Amino acid sequence: MKKKNKKVNAAILIIGNEILSGRTQDKNVAFLSNWLNSKCGITVDEVRIIPDVETTIIKNIKKLSKKFNYVFTTGGIGPTHDDITAKSISKAFRLKYEFNNEAYQILENYYGKKKFNDGRKKMAKMPAGAKLIYNPSSAAPGFITKNVLSLPGVPSILNSMIENSKKYLVKGLRIYSKTINLYTVESNISNQLGKIQNKYKKYVDIGSYPFFRLGKIGVSVVSRSSSKTNIAKVHREILEVIKLKKIKILKLN
Amino acid sequence: MKKKNKKVNAAILIIGNEILSGRTQDKNVAFLSNWLNSKCGITVDEVRIIPDVETTIIKNIKKLSKKFNYVFTTGGIGPTHDDITAKSISKAFRLKYEFNNEAYQILENYYGKKKFNDGRKKMAKMPAGAKLIYNPSSAAPGFITKNVLSLPGVPSILNSMIENSKKYLVKGLRIYSKTINLYTVESNISNQLGKIQNKYKKYVDIGSYPFFRLGKIGVSVVSRSSSKTNIAKVHREILEVIKLKKIKILKLN
Repeated sequence: MKKKNKKVNAAILIIGNEILSGRTQDKNVAFLSNWLNSKCGITVDEVRIIPDVETTIIKNIKKLSKKFNYVFTTGGIGPTHDDITAKSISKAFRLKYEFNNEAYQILENYYGKKKFNDGRKKMAKMPAGAKLIYNPSSAAPGFITKNVLSLPGVPSILNSMIENSKKYLVKGLRIYSKTINLYTVESNISNQLGKIQNKYKKYVDIGSYPFFRLGKIGVSVVSRSSSKTNIAKVHREILEVIKLKKIKILKLN
Repeated sequence: MKKKNKKVNAAILIIGNEILSGRTQDKNVAFLSNWLNSKCGITVDEVRIIPDVETTIIKNIKKLSKKFNYVFTTGGIGPTHDDITAKSISKAFRLKYEFNNEAYQILENYYGKKKFNDGRKKMAKMPAGAKLIYNPSSAAPGFITKNVLSLPGVPSILNSMIENSKKYLVKGLRIYSKTINLYTVESNISNQLGKIQNKYKKYVDIGSYPFFRLGKIGVSVVSRSSSKTNIAKVHREILEVIKLKKIKILKLN
């Protein structure tokens, strides 16, 4: 993995009617975002969830691949009629949609010649020139086409193969975060937090998120930055506000 | 709620760095999609998750409000500096960002004059002409601006107020679905399913989703349509394939 000392970003494109209809709870966004940030220093700047419709997939691939350093797609690379991600990406980049020899070989070895039916063969069809992201769980590989990395929708399979996508990524600046959990309401600290955010707006992002714990209301204040020093400075200023306002801190360990 | 005998669609716009960073697992997409479909006959056709950045929010509000019948935003309507949804929607529609008298009254009554500080007052600021979506949990109302409905990000609060948004929505055609869970692999039925989908492509959407249950692999086949009759026809054809292939059905009750 090469390293680039500046911000590298990505978009996630979730392809699947089952997520849009509410039938299935998505788990890939949180997993991918955490992994990209902590392991690769890549920030996810946009997520889109779209249906299994070819024209919609093509439009989104074109748009997002121009706008972000990387696009991660999830879903639509299985053997059935509604798996149209590979075909759509081929069309988006005007590439042939054809058998990838290496993928064909992997799948034929995995299933054996006799059981390697048409549905399974379909999983070896990809945009011309795609490189493989190996799959240790169920053989069918993901692939990268230009800056678009295509992964399966089933979270356990996606999780098992994510490390194999690392070699295709350029590492960006790691974003660090520090959280402090307070037993107070947001409006009690909003004024002061706003002032601190304004002072450090070029260096640190401060977020404020209410929580409920055993019937008590609280706020998690999260500072995010590529500079640990600036996070520490913001943290000290937040601690001063807490002291002044006599707010109780919730320790989680 | 008025009724329209055709397809009515919506987009969901999740505004929040905490979802994009992977810190928080989104739960609002699945809840809203299910509610909109089952209670209002409204289909969610796109979801976007974006950061708390004014220009990004404005661009997405403009785009999605033109493209879909409704846009539901979640997040960014609290009292802190990173809550900029109301202000951004005002800018997107070139409306004044001002106190909504009714919201101001509700919040002042709820907190009492003495505790009604600046952070809390901010929650009464909205695009001019916005109508309120009442909030039974924590008073601070959501609001509708043109075809954009703005709800909070905390799932329990969003869930508690969703029924109050119903009066602003025109009901569309209800989408029905039927699921059959099979102990087989996708590639065993992909050919036949593809043929059935092709035959009914104008009327029914057939989706195929692998599952794992107690170490066994299975496939859920989901048929979705506004016509129960067509779902029943598709279901009968799927049952024939199952019989022919001697596939075991998983009964969940």
